[in-house]
Amino acid sequence: MADGRRVTVAVTQMACGEDAAANVDRAEALVREAAAAGANIILLQELFETTYFCKTEHARHLGLAKPFEGNPLVERFAALARELGVVLPVSFFERAGQAHFNSLAMVDADGTVLGLYRKSHIPDGPGYEEKYYFSPGDTGFRVWDTAFGRLGVGICWDQWFPEAARAMALKGAEILIYPTAIGSEPPSPGYDSQPHWETVMRGHAGANLMPLIAANRIGTEVSADGCAVTFYGSSFLADWTGQVVARASRDRQELLTASFDLDEIAGFRRGWGLFRDRRPDLYGALATLDGATRGG
Amino acid sequence: MADGRRVTVAVTQMACGEDAAANVDRAEALVREAAAAGANIILLQELFETTYFCKTEHARHLGLAKPFEGNPLVERFAALARELGVVLPVSFFERAGQAHFNSLAMVDADGTVLGLYRKSHIPDGPGYEEKYYFSPGDTGFRVWDTAFGRLGVGICWDQWFPEAARAMALKGAEILIYPTAIGSEPPSPGYDSQPHWETVMRGHAGANLMPLIAANRIGTEVSADGCAVTFYGSSFLADWTGQVVARASRDRQELLTASFDLDEIAGFRRGWGLFRDRRPDLYGALATLDGATRGG
Repeated sequence: MADGRRVTVAVTQMACGEDAAANVDRAEALVREAAAAGANIILLQELFETTYFCKTEHARHLGLAKPFEGNPLVERFAALARELGVVLPVSFFERAGQAHFNSLAMVDADGTVLGLYRKSHIPDGPGYEEKYYFSPGDTGFRVWDTAFGRLGVGICWDQWFPEAARAMALKGAEILIYPTAIGSEPPSPGYDSQPHWETVMRGHAGANLMPLIAANRIGTEVSADGCAVTFYGSSFLADWTGQVVARASRDRQELLTASFDLDEIAGFRRGWGLFRDRRPDLYGALATLDGATRGG
Repeated sequence: MADGRRVTVAVTQMACGEDAAANVDRAEALVREAAAAGANIILLQELFETTYFCKTEHARHLGLAKPFEGNPLVERFAALARELGVVLPVSFFERAGQAHFNSLAMVDADGTVLGLYRKSHIPDGPGYEEKYYFSPGDTGFRVWDTAFGRLGVGICWDQWFPEAARAMALKGAEILIYPTAIGSEPPSPGYDSQPHWETVMRGHAGANLMPLIAANRIGTEVSADGCAVTFYGSSFLADWTGQVVARASRDRQELLTASFDLDEIAGFRRGWGLFRDRRPDLYGALATLDGATRGG
């Protein structure tokens, strides 16, 4: 990295339509624009190749999934990462044997595909029928040493779970990265989860003392059977105390950047003492679904 | 409770001086004022009987601790709770055999002392030398069924740990309560942790889908050897999405209230699905200090 451990992070947001090739071209254009703006790490939103097909349950959408090995989307963006010298997390719909996952390939700035993360927490509800499409991920939470720092990635619903952020922090993450697809709730017209969504992630940044970036899609998508979701954008970058340093609009294609000194932040993180004072002996309840345990 | 499961919660803040009797009288006056304003649950700040003696390390301050059984401060506020019909968490400095804890007694609205919580996470640093005074608590995280809902309490530094909030939520907490004492950092004049502090707790509220209240002290206190801390108040109440519904000033004695419908919030909490989708099988790293585990 050019300036010691100072890295520039970009977050992007865009609408996706039925033409997958056009979606991918648009994503590539955003990546090129971000690289031209000096970004070292560039975040595209969740499942940017297609519309958010999980709005309703149709078996035909399962045909969109492709294996990780030789994945054309990952290969295309790996080549782009190498050309531009940027780190690119690439969200894609993965088929693995008989299983399907909501996955992400981490691509380093030399184009090396460092590995795979499969979304651990899978939502399910009107407009977000993900349990129909995806098995809960089996990779566990991962971090990757890239040319621009050790990065941890969660995918969308993962962003609501302090456990995921903490696990990545404990594994040495220096930046938390979340591609996402969230918007209106079809059963509750007018309900807006954006402040809630942002607040929870700002909390992860503050509690783990590291920057966090989240990329969300924009636009209204309507499924063949009439289920409409308006994605609220609002992609943002937060600093190590959880304060928002840049936030996109709810409805425009955008690209935002911020720079962070990872060494300086590591110093703040050490000095604040939280990771010294944790009490794993008392966290037994977290290993359960119902909290019924002793000592936690 | 008068209106189904609608409860009114009060948070208070005040300065503490060297005259303990005056501090306790001031706290009682705030409790009476809050009850007159309709509060059902009233939160006083951490260790309100004294100045925040942990600014520096002096063995004589250990003499301030008193046993939980027959504790005069707890007994006085239990009688007050009974008289006013309010739930009162009472922070006090506990001696237990040879050990000392930063403790809290939960007092129900009929004056019953429901039990004891001992602060689990103990900070240590210039101005906040708590590891000199307090052993890390051994009670684990607790919740209590009171006349006005099931309440979980953390104390000050606990508020920085998502694990503590989650443990209380898993045990069925409906409101998270944090008495605290935090302000300036003596080695870093001008440094202000207030936004960070607030953001992390707002994150707990949002991630656990329940209201959260935090009471902090105000005023500048100077230790005998010249260590000065200016406590920044900013006591607040947050709703179940982590949005601040009321926030006090940084420097004035104040009393704030907010009302919450605990049944309505329980419905939101169930409906959002987070507690359905947790993955304890992947949280192994949280049970460690160094994150070195498989599967997490």
